[in-house]
Amino acid sequence: MTSTDQTVSGQDLLVSTFIKAWTLQVNRINDLLEIIPEEALLKEIAPGKNTGIYILGHLAAVNDAILPLLGFGKKLYPQLEQVFITSPDKSGFEMPPVSELKKYWNDVNALLLQNFNQLDLDAWLTRHEAVSAEAFVNEPHRNKLNVLISRTTHLSYHLGQLVLLREKKK
Amino acid sequence: MTSTDQTVSGQDLLVSTFIKAWTLQVNRINDLLEIIPEEALLKEIAPGKNTGIYILGHLAAVNDAILPLLGFGKKLYPQLEQVFITSPDKSGFEMPPVSELKKYWNDVNALLLQNFNQLDLDAWLTRHEAVSAEAFVNEPHRNKLNVLISRTTHLSYHLGQLVLLREKKK
Repeated sequence: MTSTDQTVSGQDLLVSTFIKAWTLQVNRINDLLEIIPEEALLKEIAPGKNTGIYILGHLAAVNDAILPLLGFGKKLYPQLEQVFITSPDKSGFEMPPVSELKKYWNDVNALLLQNFNQLDLDAWLTRHEAVSAEAFVNEPHRNKLNVLISRTTHLSYHLGQLVLLREKKK
Repeated sequence: MTSTDQTVSGQDLLVSTFIKAWTLQVNRINDLLEIIPEEALLKEIAPGKNTGIYILGHLAAVNDAILPLLGFGKKLYPQLEQVFITSPDKSGFEMPPVSELKKYWNDVNALLLQNFNQLDLDAWLTRHEAVSAEAFVNEPHRNKLNVLISRTTHLSYHLGQLVLLREKKK
């Protein structure tokens, strides 16, 4: 990049590339949720493994936790953490109905995207809230971008599982 | 970023962030392959779904295809494409043994990493080989970085499936 203009457009391109990768995973999960009947989400993705509803709640909970981690504010649905992060599936907790979890999932993602779109590249390279300013000097990888990338692969990991609940796969 | 030095270090940080995200997924799959017995890889990840060995071959084949796509050279194992990309599992093709597929997988990943480490940020933002120079003017997202990110989420998607073959999960 030979001029400031190019640098700025290169930076914008980078930022939009990360955010598009995130949005692509969210959209793929949304497309899948549209075609999987709600009762199919109550089933296990494979015998003895997690249920679809647990994975949906888990994704909503993990994404909700990005809000405080990136300094965007408090979690919208802090009650999800105990049921869907700190406890495994089938721990005996009552789960919200699928329709409610879908609302949580959508609310969290909408608020995240709104906040993601406010950050420029320099801001993405600043520390996230789980690392101190002192530690960040020596660990510059613990930045907001790294959180976005790791949560994008997290979405993809569980998308690969949820897809098993689709009827007539392939 | 206020000085050239900072810009350069910011660029290095960005590049190493993407490559680390890729390497993390490769390493997670390798860790899993170490603990899943070879005979378990012959099983389906869920009833009626893909087998572990097909997914392993698919990952090796898709990663192999990154070599020409990013201009790093020819595929190492072009014979994988027909069995593991263009054909679904259980199409009647003879598959190489697991030990051989693991070798292909490792060879491809080693060569990819070697090539990834040669590119600076500007190079990552150049077009990949599936887009023409003309089209790239209007579609700057079709760059090498975008391929790296999409293939990183591809690894994660199938990691979420392979993990179902692990004994005593959770």
